[in-house]
Amino acid sequence: MESLMEKSDYGALLKKIVERNMVYNKLGKVASYIPALARSNPEDIGISLWDVDGNIYSYGDYDKKFTIQSISKVVGLIIGLMDHGEDYIFNKLSVEATREAFDFVEGSLEKLDNPMTNAGAITICSLIKGDNSEEKLERVLSFTRKLCGNENIGINHKVFLSEKETGNKNKSIAYLLKSMGKIQGDLDEILDLYFKQCSIEVSARDLAHMGLIIANKGVNPETNEEIFPKALAKTIQAAMTIFGMYNESGKYFLDVGLPSKSGVGGGIMALVPNTMGIGVYSPALNERGNSIVGIEVLKDLSKELSLHLLG
Amino acid sequence: MESLMEKSDYGALLKKIVERNMVYNKLGKVASYIPALARSNPEDIGISLWDVDGNIYSYGDYDKKFTIQSISKVVGLIIGLMDHGEDYIFNKLSVEATREAFDFVEGSLEKLDNPMTNAGAITICSLIKGDNSEEKLERVLSFTRKLCGNENIGINHKVFLSEKETGNKNKSIAYLLKSMGKIQGDLDEILDLYFKQCSIEVSARDLAHMGLIIANKGVNPETNEEIFPKALAKTIQAAMTIFGMYNESGKYFLDVGLPSKSGVGGGIMALVPNTMGIGVYSPALNERGNSIVGIEVLKDLSKELSLHLLG
Amino acid sequence: MESLMEKSDYGALLKKIVERNMVYNKLGKVASYIPALARSNPEDIGISLWDVDGNIYSYGDYDKKFTIQSISKVVGLIIGLMDHGEDYIFNKLSVEATREAFDFVEGSLEKLDNPMTNAGAITICSLIKGDNSEEKLERVLSFTRKLCGNENIGINHKVFLSEKETGNKNKSIAYLLKSMGKIQGDLDEILDLYFKQCSIEVSARDLAHMGLIIANKGVNPETNEEIFPKALAKTIQAAMTIFGMYNESGKYFLDVGLPSKSGVGGGIMALVPNTMGIGVYSPALNERGNSIVGIEVLKDLSKELSLHLLG
Amino acid sequence: MESLMEKSDYGALLKKIVERNMVYNKLGKVASYIPALARSNPEDIGISLWDVDGNIYSYGDYDKKFTIQSISKVVGLIIGLMDHGEDYIFNKLSVEATREAFDFVEGSLEKLDNPMTNAGAITICSLIKGDNSEEKLERVLSFTRKLCGNENIGINHKVFLSEKETGNKNKSIAYLLKSMGKIQGDLDEILDLYFKQCSIEVSARDLAHMGLIIANKGVNPETNEEIFPKALAKTIQAAMTIFGMYNESGKYFLDVGLPSKSGVGGGIMALVPNTMGIGVYSPALNERGNSIVGIEVLKDLSKELSLHLLG
Repeated sequence: MESLMEKSDYGALLKKIVERNMVYNKLGKVASYIPALARSNPEDIGISLWDVDGNIYSYGDYDKKFTIQSISKVVGLIIGLMDHGEDYIFNKLSVEATREAFDFVEGSLEKLDNPMTNAGAITICSLIKGDNSEEKLERVLSFTRKLCGNENIGINHKVFLSEKETGNKNKSIAYLLKSMGKIQGDLDEILDLYFKQCSIEVSARDLAHMGLIIANKGVNPETNEEIFPKALAKTIQAAMTIFGMYNESGKYFLDVGLPSKSGVGGGIMALVPNTMGIGVYSPALNERGNSIVGIEVLKDLSKELSLHLLG
Repeated sequence: MESLMEKSDYGALLKKIVERNMVYNKLGKVASYIPALARSNPEDIGISLWDVDGNIYSYGDYDKKFTIQSISKVVGLIIGLMDHGEDYIFNKLSVEATREAFDFVEGSLEKLDNPMTNAGAITICSLIKGDNSEEKLERVLSFTRKLCGNENIGINHKVFLSEKETGNKNKSIAYLLKSMGKIQGDLDEILDLYFKQCSIEVSARDLAHMGLIIANKGVNPETNEEIFPKALAKTIQAAMTIFGMYNESGKYFLDVGLPSKSGVGGGIMALVPNTMGIGVYSPALNERGNSIVGIEVLKDLSKELSLHLLG
Repeated sequence: MESLMEKSDYGALLKKIVERNMVYNKLGKVASYIPALARSNPEDIGISLWDVDGNIYSYGDYDKKFTIQSISKVVGLIIGLMDHGEDYIFNKLSVEATREAFDFVEGSLEKLDNPMTNAGAITICSLIKGDNSEEKLERVLSFTRKLCGNENIGINHKVFLSEKETGNKNKSIAYLLKSMGKIQGDLDEILDLYFKQCSIEVSARDLAHMGLIIANKGVNPETNEEIFPKALAKTIQAAMTIFGMYNESGKYFLDVGLPSKSGVGGGIMALVPNTMGIGVYSPALNERGNSIVGIEVLKDLSKELSLHLLG
Repeated sequence: MESLMEKSDYGALLKKIVERNMVYNKLGKVASYIPALARSNPEDIGISLWDVDGNIYSYGDYDKKFTIQSISKVVGLIIGLMDHGEDYIFNKLSVEATREAFDFVEGSLEKLDNPMTNAGAITICSLIKGDNSEEKLERVLSFTRKLCGNENIGINHKVFLSEKETGNKNKSIAYLLKSMGKIQGDLDEILDLYFKQCSIEVSARDLAHMGLIIANKGVNPETNEEIFPKALAKTIQAAMTIFGMYNESGKYFLDVGLPSKSGVGGGIMALVPNTMGIGVYSPALNERGNSIVGIEVLKDLSKELSLHLLG
């Protein structure tokens, strides 16, 4: 990475970039399918950078909590890869871009379920090892805490209950997967795990740490603890690069060029391989379900610091 | 109807037509998704004609019991129309041909659910009036008994349990409908009703009587009892004509030209307006899910007796 | 047909029905993809009934000329059936309802091309016999004249040139059909024939006569001339019944219940088997491309004279 | 790039990797839709690496000529970007993954035409500047020659004529695009240009040079000539990364992780940003249309030299 400025200026840079892009929140809308999300403040904006040398640069509402939502798909993917290996997981799931769930003819289900879709993530939830559902959830939670470097991370139960109550489309996907033999087991348990993992509360700072661990190939640079095997890092980063931003992944790769994953809670977790993790929070979403200010901020940041994978 | 033969010869005609077409069962396969259906005998063949003057002509295994399956969609449609009226029902459901369930992009769900699809029939099950699920089931059963003129009709509980156990695709459809606001209420109850109505046991003779009542616009010609309002007859017959034979409805209308409904149990219920009902049973199915001998027999019968709606 | 009134009152009935339904033209729009159609007067309304006894009842602009458009698909189908027989034609084309052209995945082309779609009609144009394109066109024209009982019928060349010029979607369909081996030969010639047959000018009175010939199984009741073989009548009427009104065929069958074919020129040709032909012209179309007043008038007519196939 | 070996060993490495993977050609098939391609020798294998320091490493049939086919989409994209700028081009085309052409419902055409699909490439052909078709072709040819560093590059006219003759599906796509207002102008000319650019003959060595120029952001490292503006490099590399390998782009990115483009002629052009270009030729294709040995060779090469974008 050939940086255009001293790191000591990063704080000022974040402020400048955020201020320049805040106006875009007027063009988006906070998610409204459950009350807890609908009450988010579209003016909230927080960002954190956490690099491998232990430096943290933050601005705005970087400590504000919000639900992780689809960013948990990355957590699930890592656990799935650790539990079963790449061959098994990618034999189960597709590794190509998909259109919306349900937009398929029978026989072409492969298009439905890359690991960053709901179908793929629900399938992975069905595969997470554990003696019972408590143990499975505990594994997801404790793994998320390690990735975020934050022991206090927990579930927003109000959001979980709302997700569960309004989750008919996900139930439909789960039964479809079951009818095609893609998943086994108790669907209510599997979906509970899925809805709970989506309801984990994080901050932009937590996401920056998660990005950092994945950027650093599974090793916590502060403690040298191996959180996941180095060999998985490339696959995880690649899945984020290709599918991480819903149907906007192609455009986002052109503009930002970093492995990233977004959630409808308003978060984006991004990373610069071997270098740093980035967490952004701004809950006003564009029509693809991505944080509208978040994307603009990451575009600018990628440009200003020359972070694009393709230089 | 300009008949080509005396009614007294109908018995011999049925025998001749059946014998001529029995060979086609070699080209089909009995449904195998549940054990109870897989054990059907592909050599079984039964047919009954029941006319408005009270004459019955039958041949073969016309008294053998099998599950009604999708033919119950006609029963459900009539109850739905009686409970809510045409406007309400056809506001809820589509009235155009559909492709397979799930083959749609969001926004075009209208294509999914005409009353002869699983999605349409599940929606109707959610609308059947009754204080509780027992009462709703009792209404369906008692109405089926009246249509069939047979008080002994009941449910095959083994088939019901199998349908329920393997019914993940129908559960998926139900949750999708719920997620789109098409149905309300307890899905397990709604699906239980749906699976139970599919598991009602009938004979070819029962289906002939059902066809007769619909042909005679809701009135039992023997007792003059009005089983459903005359004004609904045209709609019911039209829905059968347009959608009754899955994705083979167009070809079937060209060849046979009668309002009909098939089920994967091997039954076909057909009718000649104002004249007679016809029930056929032969469990070997073609790839569209229709009784292969059943269709051939009805083609011949339509030709020999000049029954085609278009003359 | 159990009529509710004396035939002597038919003229008054037509007037009453038209006046009652004229207001619906406000809800529709004339076709605008070519200037000649865009200049149609949405207030125009004409209707003719022509029965097998030679009686004609007409009202309004029943002599006004407009282009036949998709109603020519029926003409093409009859010629195709005469030239090649049913087996050949329905081996080539589908006999099930379709969605829009191009809405298919490869391998399911069968869904594209029933004889009442553009794909099906273009395929049939490629099959019409003749030593050269002039002869093929002459056969189509002369056959249309016989069906309409009108020697003066010809092509609107302005419309033809516009259709040809704006016909890129039809060219796209033709090349797709060719790429899949469905059609052979010079596509420009085939498409010219297709665009020309769509540009034939007729009146509501002409369409009533066409309906009469098809209703009377190919025989002109005035002259006893056999215009097409009796054996084809059922197939032609069936194709009209199932597919004749674009994506509104199901709803139309419920409401009107007569073999019919519409065109975006504003015409509808309908028929009562063995009894009469009906032609309607009113160029304001609904979103499905059908004459909006035309459908309302036919609904009322079917009800008042009890014309529905299902009684 | 942290290389695992001395460059002096690259020649031996290429030999070893090729020998290890040659067996895979048994699992593939050469393209057969035109005779010229069908006559390719599935045992052919050639590879070249060309780095920014001017070193070339080659093995096998690296000088054998074959048609560039879809790799020309990259050439077209660059010219399009130079002629019209990014905003104009990506306003015209999609930047998300697509399914097969024609697998769409109207209104969602955006899914059809990213710059690496036939629809996208045909659209770009319609936009290439030039006073007449000769000039446009000359621009494409001369630009290809510069990219390949080879003045002798020309068109295989036999292949061009075959492509044109069998190109009905592409014609269908072109007319569809025209009908939707996506392209203007004479389609025959546009398609001729498209078929001609697909019929340009190159070698693996030529493709390695093309990759080198794109890797080096448009500058020929030998002559310092700017072949295209530096600012376009990221976009071109990104489009190759996301869409370059047909429906196998996601899996390929996981496994190889380099901007690449394949063609059904058997070529793959890949690149390591700022470092080197790679050309591979092996005409046996997998079911996605990609060189089967080519992909295996690139997988090994990426691993052995640690070339993956994600480290």
